[in-house]
Amino acid sequence: MPAPVDAIVSLAKRRGFAYPSGEIYGATPSAWDYGPLGVELKENIRRQWWRSMVQQRDDVVGLDSAVILPPDVWAASGHVDEFVDPLTECRACRHRFRTDQIDDGPGPYDPARLALVPCPDCGAKDAWTEPRLYSGLLATRVGTGESGSGAGDGTHYLRPETSQGIFANVSNVMNSARRRPPFGIAQVGKAFRNEIAPGDFVFRTREFEQMEMAFFIEPGSEESWHEYWLQARWDWYVDLGIPVADLRLYEHPQESLAHYSTRTVDIEYRFGLGGDPDGFAELEGVANRGDLDLSRHAKRSGQDLSFFDQEKGERWVPYVIEPAAGLSRSVLAFLLDAYDVDEAPNARGGTDARTVLRLDPRLAPVKVAVLPLSRNAELSPRARELCRQLRERWNVEFDDSGAIGRRYRRQDEIGTPYCVTVDFASLDDGEVTVRERDTMGQERVGLDNVERYLAERLPTC
Amino acid sequence: MPAPVDAIVSLAKRRGFAYPSGEIYGATPSAWDYGPLGVELKENIRRQWWRSMVQQRDDVVGLDSAVILPPDVWAASGHVDEFVDPLTECRACRHRFRTDQIDDGPGPYDPARLALVPCPDCGAKDAWTEPRLYSGLLATRVGTGESGSGAGDGTHYLRPETSQGIFANVSNVMNSARRRPPFGIAQVGKAFRNEIAPGDFVFRTREFEQMEMAFFIEPGSEESWHEYWLQARWDWYVDLGIPVADLRLYEHPQESLAHYSTRTVDIEYRFGLGGDPDGFAELEGVANRGDLDLSRHAKRSGQDLSFFDQEKGERWVPYVIEPAAGLSRSVLAFLLDAYDVDEAPNARGGTDARTVLRLDPRLAPVKVAVLPLSRNAELSPRARELCRQLRERWNVEFDDSGAIGRRYRRQDEIGTPYCVTVDFASLDDGEVTVRERDTMGQERVGLDNVERYLAERLPTC
Repeated sequence: MPAPVDAIVSLAKRRGFAYPSGEIYGATPSAWDYGPLGVELKENIRRQWWRSMVQQRDDVVGLDSAVILPPDVWAASGHVDEFVDPLTECRACRHRFRTDQIDDGPGPYDPARLALVPCPDCGAKDAWTEPRLYSGLLATRVGTGESGSGAGDGTHYLRPETSQGIFANVSNVMNSARRRPPFGIAQVGKAFRNEIAPGDFVFRTREFEQMEMAFFIEPGSEESWHEYWLQARWDWYVDLGIPVADLRLYEHPQESLAHYSTRTVDIEYRFGLGGDPDGFAELEGVANRGDLDLSRHAKRSGQDLSFFDQEKGERWVPYVIEPAAGLSRSVLAFLLDAYDVDEAPNARGGTDARTVLRLDPRLAPVKVAVLPLSRNAELSPRARELCRQLRERWNVEFDDSGAIGRRYRRQDEIGTPYCVTVDFASLDDGEVTVRERDTMGQERVGLDNVERYLAERLPTC
Repeated sequence: MPAPVDAIVSLAKRRGFAYPSGEIYGATPSAWDYGPLGVELKENIRRQWWRSMVQQRDDVVGLDSAVILPPDVWAASGHVDEFVDPLTECRACRHRFRTDQIDDGPGPYDPARLALVPCPDCGAKDAWTEPRLYSGLLATRVGTGESGSGAGDGTHYLRPETSQGIFANVSNVMNSARRRPPFGIAQVGKAFRNEIAPGDFVFRTREFEQMEMAFFIEPGSEESWHEYWLQARWDWYVDLGIPVADLRLYEHPQESLAHYSTRTVDIEYRFGLGGDPDGFAELEGVANRGDLDLSRHAKRSGQDLSFFDQEKGERWVPYVIEPAAGLSRSVLAFLLDAYDVDEAPNARGGTDARTVLRLDPRLAPVKVAVLPLSRNAELSPRARELCRQLRERWNVEFDDSGAIGRRYRRQDEIGTPYCVTVDFASLDDGEVTVRERDTMGQERVGLDNVERYLAERLPTC
């Protein structure tokens, strides 16, 4: 069972995984700043995704496109017209809501039913204004606004998804990287949405990171590729430690599909949000986008984005299967999953509650902590030298503050798989104590052998 | 001598380092999209910076703050008021210019002198309008614009530098990561500026990536720390292959310092831009920002951002030395530096011109190429198996297309340090040919030994 989100938010702030963004000017649920440990955890997740989706495959290559693309991209993709929500305002307190936030009745929006719903903020009844469409796109104006310019007022958009940058580059990638369907283009990066109801830590924020891969295939093969990628993505989470019991698939009903999709299956995780500790929510969506995106871009740009299949002598527009994962949501899921409280022996012969992050070693922000038993003219240089040596391979923390028990507790709480303690016996026998996080088991290992010992148990990258 | 930028732009497009952003809707100099090789090169540079600046040090930790911070951050930092340029418009052709773009005379702006400068675009004389201040900040409006909101119109800014996110988090980091001056906070990420004159490939673009580190120190120690970081950053470029002859230091004169700095020294690289093949331009700036940023944030936020020095019993606001490197500019510098044309033997007993990227192996996008001599039922499976094995450690390309000489040329052109060729002799003697990029020297190595052979010559990460 995943931990409650509140426990993670508290740990995140205390230990440096994430802070409310710009907190000195007042906390907002719209954004979070990742601290020293959060940035390493996020980077490790990103790297595992990149290795598995790009570097270890022959059929997927990477891309990193701009955040501010030509406005035509978003006109063609449909986002300018279709990435909108109806908003209604309470005439009493002036707060605005998406109609689906306050009216969860079945089927489309019904003004008569909405009128019966009191305002969630002030309780006013029958105070709703006529809903107006509201864009989820964040806009900005670029250029100098030259008075003789015929190119409009310079309005551009921050990308609400990374994948349109992929579609706009499909010809460039096919030509320069010499790829032919079936092949994929992967991208990790920030996306921006004007979220009306941000919240639940990094689950829903104004800016967030996506890990998206568009896989281009021959029309007719979409069903098997859809299944293939659903399975591959499911396995990725399980391989990195998420229990199958906390994952499930959710098939979007036809009537609620996004404008670009003919079939979408979400991989959901038991995030436990919204007051329901058992509640599942989207971790990743795997969509069949058909040829919609490429056809729209071909039409608007006047470029030929079809593919000539030499074997069949046919020309076709590739279909796209897109596994779109949330990197920010993955950070939250892995933290919720890893958080545990058990019992550890204390100095009085009893036990104390211990908080431990059971992160997969590939994801742990710090791989090894080097701990001289005390600040000492003989212990410290040996510990420093060991630390310097291990840092050639891993992210290693050096800590010579306070009691050893308290230092173990801190490393447990941030998920460090191994602690290496240099003590006074080390000066005689040349051995150090290696302590494993989950079992708290300790082993004496020769100083010369520590690197090899750890290399057998830890990932290199 | 670095290559001309045009050669790099052409290679970038042809081989997949970078494409003009959103090219199907018309190329713009404002942004570039990194292709399959560019994204790996950029990531390798970023990782080297992170390893050297964060992971291999005790005194620097990482951060990843939001792009859209509270507007107070930019009011406090001075960017809202001071990140502005005077723009003048030509009344004849309506094009706008920064006054310093068209008037390069000494000292401050002089209207009488400007009047004598003809418009660079249309040649009109004495056609300039009165200059008006123009912000380099890109703005966006967030939130629903609730009519009763007293919090302004929701105008926020895209960060023009990453470092303000560091300053706003200094207390959170000090508390959670238990750091005391001297210590640093490092961040890599996108920044956005409304560039009036973008150009020169990724040298100057609307969005770009920075690698910034703010190092917090005791007032009075700024001179020695400034020298320390200048040297450390200089050494970093040299260690990764940039010749000392193509680097130089530039001390900003007092009268042209940015508003936040009391001393800035740039590390310049011989980019050869603007028609001057010998021309140097900024690669990284190392600034003494004093206590300006923390003092301004303390004042505006009402938070105490000073540090109590227990040893001295004094309270002081830390000074900041900030090495601010351009990741995008580093990509360009390393490409310019690595590009070379030499002679390679051809099949006719003569030589052909060969383009080769002499990238440091740590930066090379692809570390190893595995090349079966031909598509063959016996060679291909062995080559595939070797590729799979090597991919556990490195980014490896598999290529079984066309003549072996052409495949070598392609790998040379993208900077791959080693090619491993599986040929028919391999089936008998179990050996493969390992070819080194720079010398084109070839060695026969046993299949069982290839990984170890390469591990002695290539970085792991």
